[in-house]
Amino acid sequence: MKPNHLILCQTLAYDFKQEHYLITALTHCSFGIPNNERLEFLGDALLNFIMAQVLFERFPKAREGQLTRMRAHLVKRETLVKIAQYLQLGEYLYLGTGELKTGGKYRASTLADGVEALVGAIYLDGGLESCQKVILQLWNKFLHNLPQRKIKDPKTRLQEYLQASQQDLPIYKVLSTQGSPHAQYFKVECVASGLKTPTYGSGDSRRGAEQSAAENALRILNAE
Amino acid sequence: MKPNHLILCQTLAYDFKQEHYLITALTHCSFGIPNNERLEFLGDALLNFIMAQVLFERFPKAREGQLTRMRAHLVKRETLVKIAQYLQLGEYLYLGTGELKTGGKYRASTLADGVEALVGAIYLDGGLESCQKVILQLWNKFLHNLPQRKIKDPKTRLQEYLQASQQDLPIYKVLSTQGSPHAQYFKVECVASGLKTPTYGSGDSRRGAEQSAAENALRILNAE
Repeated sequence: MKPNHLILCQTLAYDFKQEHYLITALTHCSFGIPNNERLEFLGDALLNFIMAQVLFERFPKAREGQLTRMRAHLVKRETLVKIAQYLQLGEYLYLGTGELKTGGKYRASTLADGVEALVGAIYLDGGLESCQKVILQLWNKFLHNLPQRKIKDPKTRLQEYLQASQQDLPIYKVLSTQGSPHAQYFKVECVASGLKTPTYGSGDSRRGAEQSAAENALRILNAE
Repeated sequence: MKPNHLILCQTLAYDFKQEHYLITALTHCSFGIPNNERLEFLGDALLNFIMAQVLFERFPKAREGQLTRMRAHLVKRETLVKIAQYLQLGEYLYLGTGELKTGGKYRASTLADGVEALVGAIYLDGGLESCQKVILQLWNKFLHNLPQRKIKDPKTRLQEYLQASQQDLPIYKVLSTQGSPHAQYFKVECVASGLKTPTYGSGDSRRGAEQSAAENALRILNAE
């Protein structure tokens, strides 16, 4: 293996068994064919999946929208560029002469694509588990500094929202209960300052129905 | 396991070991909490990754753009709805009373989300390999009827594009060759009817550079 590739492997904490995967991942399309475009496609999908899985496990109470926002933060270009800078990836990329002259090795899109291609290459070379391990280590800092890391439930968030503007607390009222005693189904309304009409929620527990009504209230209040 | 769940498992060709994953996947948010929203998030990411991997392997010559287009076809809502219809998923979904009354079990978004949630549930219940197997079987027809299944290289496509409108064939010209004999770098121009100015391409082989110039020509011709 080329000496500079060894250094990159050290920073990645991953040893490529097949150097050609690494070389392809480092080859920008301006350099020729084969280049890292296909690996970038694979790596992007893989990164999104691995992050989805990690967030799903680490935030068992987060709702889908929150998981989506957290993942977007982890896989956005700015984050990928920071990972590339940590790896000094620009120094390792194979770029066409034109790209080199116009500062291709500092270009955000080139760096971000390169990181995704590296992820794809590690997967092909070492499998899913190796790839997960490398990603969790490289992204460690970002995974511990997620926006909205403390996920609060909708009722709490609605309460805090109203308190912040010194408004009355919301009022929840059970409208109906259906079903047998062991399989009940609740319908609840939520009346809150700022809402022209009540919002509604339903569920198989009173609390669940209230959370759902609070979520709907937050959606309207945030949209207005 | 509930008798109707057994029928769904048969159609899926997958036996759930833990029925609660299946139940959660079938529970629409209108029904209460827990519902299938989180599983949908996980399943969507997984589906995108599994399809990326399949296409990457099956089309070793396809470029990133082509892979992206093919995957979009496989995971778009219309395709997911067709899968849901094959599974008769609407009949198994747990929907809130309001949703039921307004035809929720026929709603495209509800059906598509349900399919993604099922993918997530199978993954949690049986792991990646089981999930891949189920997906490849369910999507078999779509994987064999991909748009642009025969991926042609850019030079061929440019030639066919011009021939279709009875125009002259494109002319490629090497503008420069740089580097040592064993590490040459080519710059090529492509002149074609319909292009106001030539397009350019570069690469470490003459053919690679020509393909790149042809790709750029196609991009301009298709955009106009």
